[in-house]
Amino acid sequence: MKKIAILTSGGDAPGMNCAIRSVVRVASNNNIEVTGVGYGYQGLIEKDFKKIGPRDVSNIISRGGTILKTARSEDFFKKDIRKKSYENLVTECIEALVVIGGNGSYKGALSLHNDFNLPVVGIPGTIDNDINGTQRTLGFDTALNTAMDAIDKVKDTATSMDRIFLIEVMGRDSGSIAVYASLAGGAEDVIIPQEDKDVGQIIEKIKEARSKGKRSWIIIIAEGAGGADLFAHRFKKFMSDIRITVIGHTQRGGAASVFDRFLGAVMGKEAVDALLRNEKASAIGWLDDRAYSYPLQEAVKPKKEDFTYLLELIKMLT
Amino acid sequence: MKKIAILTSGGDAPGMNCAIRSVVRVASNNNIEVTGVGYGYQGLIEKDFKKIGPRDVSNIISRGGTILKTARSEDFFKKDIRKKSYENLVTECIEALVVIGGNGSYKGALSLHNDFNLPVVGIPGTIDNDINGTQRTLGFDTALNTAMDAIDKVKDTATSMDRIFLIEVMGRDSGSIAVYASLAGGAEDVIIPQEDKDVGQIIEKIKEARSKGKRSWIIIIAEGAGGADLFAHRFKKFMSDIRITVIGHTQRGGAASVFDRFLGAVMGKEAVDALLRNEKASAIGWLDDRAYSYPLQEAVKPKKEDFTYLLELIKMLT
Amino acid sequence: MKKIAILTSGGDAPGMNCAIRSVVRVASNNNIEVTGVGYGYQGLIEKDFKKIGPRDVSNIISRGGTILKTARSEDFFKKDIRKKSYENLVTECIEALVVIGGNGSYKGALSLHNDFNLPVVGIPGTIDNDINGTQRTLGFDTALNTAMDAIDKVKDTATSMDRIFLIEVMGRDSGSIAVYASLAGGAEDVIIPQEDKDVGQIIEKIKEARSKGKRSWIIIIAEGAGGADLFAHRFKKFMSDIRITVIGHTQRGGAASVFDRFLGAVMGKEAVDALLRNEKASAIGWLDDRAYSYPLQEAVKPKKEDFTYLLELIKMLT
Amino acid sequence: MKKIAILTSGGDAPGMNCAIRSVVRVASNNNIEVTGVGYGYQGLIEKDFKKIGPRDVSNIISRGGTILKTARSEDFFKKDIRKKSYENLVTECIEALVVIGGNGSYKGALSLHNDFNLPVVGIPGTIDNDINGTQRTLGFDTALNTAMDAIDKVKDTATSMDRIFLIEVMGRDSGSIAVYASLAGGAEDVIIPQEDKDVGQIIEKIKEARSKGKRSWIIIIAEGAGGADLFAHRFKKFMSDIRITVIGHTQRGGAASVFDRFLGAVMGKEAVDALLRNEKASAIGWLDDRAYSYPLQEAVKPKKEDFTYLLELIKMLT
Repeated sequence: MKKIAILTSGGDAPGMNCAIRSVVRVASNNNIEVTGVGYGYQGLIEKDFKKIGPRDVSNIISRGGTILKTARSEDFFKKDIRKKSYENLVTECIEALVVIGGNGSYKGALSLHNDFNLPVVGIPGTIDNDINGTQRTLGFDTALNTAMDAIDKVKDTATSMDRIFLIEVMGRDSGSIAVYASLAGGAEDVIIPQEDKDVGQIIEKIKEARSKGKRSWIIIIAEGAGGADLFAHRFKKFMSDIRITVIGHTQRGGAASVFDRFLGAVMGKEAVDALLRNEKASAIGWLDDRAYSYPLQEAVKPKKEDFTYLLELIKMLT
Repeated sequence: MKKIAILTSGGDAPGMNCAIRSVVRVASNNNIEVTGVGYGYQGLIEKDFKKIGPRDVSNIISRGGTILKTARSEDFFKKDIRKKSYENLVTECIEALVVIGGNGSYKGALSLHNDFNLPVVGIPGTIDNDINGTQRTLGFDTALNTAMDAIDKVKDTATSMDRIFLIEVMGRDSGSIAVYASLAGGAEDVIIPQEDKDVGQIIEKIKEARSKGKRSWIIIIAEGAGGADLFAHRFKKFMSDIRITVIGHTQRGGAASVFDRFLGAVMGKEAVDALLRNEKASAIGWLDDRAYSYPLQEAVKPKKEDFTYLLELIKMLT
Repeated sequence: MKKIAILTSGGDAPGMNCAIRSVVRVASNNNIEVTGVGYGYQGLIEKDFKKIGPRDVSNIISRGGTILKTARSEDFFKKDIRKKSYENLVTECIEALVVIGGNGSYKGALSLHNDFNLPVVGIPGTIDNDINGTQRTLGFDTALNTAMDAIDKVKDTATSMDRIFLIEVMGRDSGSIAVYASLAGGAEDVIIPQEDKDVGQIIEKIKEARSKGKRSWIIIIAEGAGGADLFAHRFKKFMSDIRITVIGHTQRGGAASVFDRFLGAVMGKEAVDALLRNEKASAIGWLDDRAYSYPLQEAVKPKKEDFTYLLELIKMLT
Repeated sequence: MKKIAILTSGGDAPGMNCAIRSVVRVASNNNIEVTGVGYGYQGLIEKDFKKIGPRDVSNIISRGGTILKTARSEDFFKKDIRKKSYENLVTECIEALVVIGGNGSYKGALSLHNDFNLPVVGIPGTIDNDINGTQRTLGFDTALNTAMDAIDKVKDTATSMDRIFLIEVMGRDSGSIAVYASLAGGAEDVIIPQEDKDVGQIIEKIKEARSKGKRSWIIIIAEGAGGADLFAHRFKKFMSDIRITVIGHTQRGGAASVFDRFLGAVMGKEAVDALLRNEKASAIGWLDDRAYSYPLQEAVKPKKEDFTYLLELIKMLT
């Protein structure tokens, strides 16, 4: 193997730059040249290619976002567009593609492989922690810490003013960020897509707690559960003074945490190693404290998440 | 003077605890006892009083919110309610009141003074920096740093995805947070209540910049300018892919910055000193690098803010 | 089981308060009363006992240090002193003891169990990540993030001034913090107790890199490897302009990270569950993404750490 | 004026990049071209020149250090070397020089002006806040916040373990960082170069406080006061268990705070404006809430610092 390409696709996630750096430097150590593709699959189509050497990734480890830029490409779902992309790669003598992104990005990579037999490897770059086959995705830990900081700050006001806050966190269809952020932020309740929650019951709990002297209350809501606005509407039927905070896009930015930088480093290495082992369509996962590679077609399956234990724990810790 | 009371009122602001600590310890150094009043003016009415000694304020310097709790009290606008509050103070032999809060809280203190001749002193505790007679209010610097961190993070996504973001910051009717956060965050544009802004013109500038290769754009909007939702609506007529982030209540929480802790310390001392100098209705301000006291009736007048110079500078720095 | 005691012992670590909160609230959910012991084993000896209810642990989740205070107790190594401690527990009808601490604290708990058959359970509270049988200890992630922030900042100067920095991190005899902080901070080299490192060779690498245009260089050194001062002395024989930074005690403080708060929550629950399952001398560990309990006598054995893979990766990523 | 040069010199300070950005963009707005000089005065000597346009300073606002790199140049004290530097500027048609740095850098600029009549303007870039004629220097606020964060963290251990800590902060011969950090960190005592402090007396105060139940104690020491090691030695004669933390170079790095970014923006503009007003040798200062320009020869005089009021306040707040 002499030349590979790398792209970031979908929403940006903290740690993407660390994975890029790792892929580039580990490849270089194995005498493989790396071509950076700009703006995800769009760059494949438009041939937005640039050579990236080991010194081009200096000092990017602490930067949020992705130096390769990213995009969501609708065009790439069309086979003829993919064909053009593949030909662009062939023209450049690129023998394999590393894709850093989430579920949609993985599906793009798998199509490219299925259609043209191009070796591909996926690194799970998404804050949502919703990729099948890996216990952690790149960016999840940083996003959680950002969410927790915000919760800590809102709690200052909630406590000082005896207020009830509904705080929306990201996570698309997954409740992962919501559940972990609730545990870390010490939230009193959490609403996730995976569980039906009765607003009336929550109100009862709040009223009971208030009668016992506990006057502030924080409820974390996953964006996939319907959103803070919808629930605020429901809550306000019972209780008028609920405040809403939507943490929003800040969760996707910032310097990556130690764990996400570490994950970027080991996953980047594992991605190059997988290609060197001649794997054709792999995803890199984190399992039992180490990076490993597994079939990409496993990775694109829906992740089954069971939060029963943690939801029970949140209840106990209120 | 043997006994004074202290309360925090209105929205909480970082640094309030530092000011409380300073008032309590400086008073103690002058053999004055301090009574803490819970929940702002509501606590005056309901006699929510508690003695606070110098050791009761240990380790609160780094905590957000206010240990005294705070509230907004509508009742206090009624004279008979204020009378009851005054009598509660008299019963407890409290000779003066320190109020930490914003404009509304100041007005409450002034009424109390005007009606019953109670010596009062105000410390400007509000993130909005909108109190007349002081260059800085307690909490402004911390809120700005929180807003800037959020802008920095959103910028990672904006840059990685070539996006346009509308970011709403707090500040009530003031544009102070918006202007300073724009300068510190390197935002491309800012919308404040004090200035009419044509959405069409902003769009033109964005399009022109895009044609020159600058593809991401961040616009800060003060909540008092109409809010992000309203403007998003206007923007979307011209440009569909604008994202909105409302930084929200996080701006009011968190450990205070160095400057706000410093301000809390020197303003707390100045407040006690003003009472010792027999001042009857003073506000504490920050002017030319030092705390000073001035008439409370000056402080309740609207602050004239002229952002011309800074708005011009933001334009130049884009 | 009706009453248990809890103490924190040895150096404080971020997340200890989260584990205390979890033990107290989970115990309360199971109708078990919890007695807090002040200052570690010293408090057992001196009967520094206080009941802690579920509301006493409100809002401690975001606080560094330990609300129970901690100490290192030499006295506790003596059997007659331990006997007195045991009798103090018996007098108070305390049926089991939860100990949060590192290796030395675990040994104390095991002695107490071995001598008097008291049920004990250990939660690994130490930033050093050096407890056998667990992939992570409470505080490690936070300490790493603090160390990484410091490295990021020092790197600004190193890069701006083309300097070589030797940065000492904590970790006692373990190289864990040093290795992970090097990966996350993008350090060029790392010196740990587990590996002999030739200063002359490092100097050669630096000189070679400088000749190729890479002019700044960061070397992380574990305190257990001999300390920054010793190595600075060695380096300065070859190269005069090396700067030293010892990150120091800051690594032990601060609000815990998401992961450490999470770990505190699940380990606290697992500790209470272990006692409810009638386990007599367990330690709580983190393995394969979940908390589990295992024999305390396994936990006190030396941890075998193999950093070969990660050290190799650091080399590749330079 | 058609072309100016800019350099950063001496120790790097947070906010330098913000000032560079401001100078470059404000100059560009006035149709002035800017040449960036690498490595301070060394770059003038070695003609390390590069044109910097408005887009070259994108996204540097949040980065620590200086994109121009910095150095301390001994050579520049020699007149013939300065002559060469001046000729290098003339060759490039550079009509004026902006210098961002501390006292030594200012002296270099003044010499260049005095010898060859080159218009120069200084921006006070140093964390030490020790430049005459300005209430704040660029970097001071950020360095203070870094120091305060470290103190907050050390306090967690001090409080949890009843310990006495001696924490050394930067500041060269100035006590500014030490005094402000003590106030913001809630330190019990502070040792600065400007004041003789008796170690025996401090020990007495600590012992007295311990007898009253206050068991932890934090003493901030300015590096210019003799250093933590020297004082630790003195303290240990009386009290064995004192711990030392040297915050070190982290104080010079990191993303600048809001205030330092703001200062960089307004000072950069004022520097260009001063040149446009035909000023020949100015320094930019911060006075009474705005940037202003004043004679550079005033700026190089020693700053008289009077900390009496603040030292008294620290005593009261203990």
